[in-house]
Amino acid sequence: MELSIPELQAVLSDFAEERDWKRFHTPKNLAMALAGEIGELVSIFQWLTSEESAGIMRSPRRAELVESEIADVFSYLLQLAGSLDIDLEVVLAAKIEKNRERYPIKLSYGHAGKYTELVDVEDDFP
Amino acid sequence: MELSIPELQAVLSDFAEERDWKRFHTPKNLAMALAGEIGELVSIFQWLTSEESAGIMRSPRRAELVESEIADVFSYLLQLAGSLDIDLEVVLAAKIEKNRERYPIKLSYGHAGKYTELVDVEDDFP
Amino acid sequence: MELSIPELQAVLSDFAEERDWKRFHTPKNLAMALAGEIGELVSIFQWLTSEESAGIMRSPRRAELVESEIADVFSYLLQLAGSLDIDLEVVLAAKIEKNRERYPIKLSYGHAGKYTELVDVEDDFP
Amino acid sequence: MELSIPELQAVLSDFAEERDWKRFHTPKNLAMALAGEIGELVSIFQWLTSEESAGIMRSPRRAELVESEIADVFSYLLQLAGSLDIDLEVVLAAKIEKNRERYPIKLSYGHAGKYTELVDVEDDFP
Repeated sequence: MELSIPELQAVLSDFAEERDWKRFHTPKNLAMALAGEIGELVSIFQWLTSEESAGIMRSPRRAELVESEIADVFSYLLQLAGSLDIDLEVVLAAKIEKNRERYPIKLSYGHAGKYTELVDVEDDFP
Repeated sequence: MELSIPELQAVLSDFAEERDWKRFHTPKNLAMALAGEIGELVSIFQWLTSEESAGIMRSPRRAELVESEIADVFSYLLQLAGSLDIDLEVVLAAKIEKNRERYPIKLSYGHAGKYTELVDVEDDFP
Repeated sequence: MELSIPELQAVLSDFAEERDWKRFHTPKNLAMALAGEIGELVSIFQWLTSEESAGIMRSPRRAELVESEIADVFSYLLQLAGSLDIDLEVVLAAKIEKNRERYPIKLSYGHAGKYTELVDVEDDFP
Repeated sequence: MELSIPELQAVLSDFAEERDWKRFHTPKNLAMALAGEIGELVSIFQWLTSEESAGIMRSPRRAELVESEIADVFSYLLQLAGSLDIDLEVVLAAKIEKNRERYPIKLSYGHAGKYTELVDVEDDFP
């Protein structure tokens, strides 16, 4: 296997094209589809403790469910990015650089707060 | 560039590790973070028509916003899959195969319905 | 009928209590459950045009689906607010007052932009 | 205070009308707006433990945030239901009745599983 991201996007694009689904696949609609799939993914974890969630792949039934939903999320993310001509790798690399500035290790070590809150995290939890 | 998906996951994992964020990054919490970022992404498109959404990248301000949110979604998806030891490519390939069976071209051509509805789509729209 | 919001919350609370579900119903988990239900609701609309969405209740099958998902969203919103001791009416009234200030009619008439963007909406769409 | 749900919907409808926002408020768009607000709500809880989430209202800064997001969710839910002529109370009452059948106390006591899984919950967690 080991297809590149653009190759995966081409497979998905052909799949939609063959079924005349491209006319449904506007960025707005794909963003909604992505939101819908995330909803299904989140719902798998909703009643689990964080510890249980870490062991979820040991339940074959749940593992299959999680894999299926993660695949759907990845699929719509690839299609959404494709429809907008956004290079996922490029925007991710840019975001990581930005986050290195926003979250200097010294200030953000052990704090889950947003960068806009990093000055006053001491007052707060976690 | 052209990092592979596991390489991107390694970068993100190191980033979290250096900040002692791994203890927040349970699958449950990462699924929530993913849902949060999708919410931001969807909200960019909420008042746009489908046509406007297709031209969104022509507005530099909005393009930057979309790229930033898509990067966040991709980042958390990579981290979630990493935390579960799920190979994104493998599960996506499996899902595409399943969808080839569920959505035969003949039945699904031009229909946006779910595969469970493919028998009675004539009664319905779109 | 015509139960008040606190009365509806009491019915839902009893329902959960009787099934020993209260221990799952932390605010974190209820927020996730709410996100999951919204995902299902959004997915009903994902491939519809805005015009089709306005007529969705004319399809009995879809109407039933929409009603079912909206009920689930309302149910978890009531339970989440209840678990946090938040009075939905009070916070909504406060938000409407805030929005009256944020979105003066003169500036926001016909503009869907966020209040933080209201100065430069002319440059942008819609 | 103590406005009824239809009265709250009328206030929100007037607010939108005065700003010429009704043309943005199709059911599809309102469902997206609702999804966006849920994303913001979920993100507040994403790094908290379930225990921390139960005490979130003791942090004034976070309490204000939660109240603000819950108000937004409620606001869009009311507007969405209004746009579809759905009576929130009626559909909630119907859902509760359905759930009484789906989740008999004897079978569902202490189990967070979906009703479709209630036969085999013993094999699974939680």
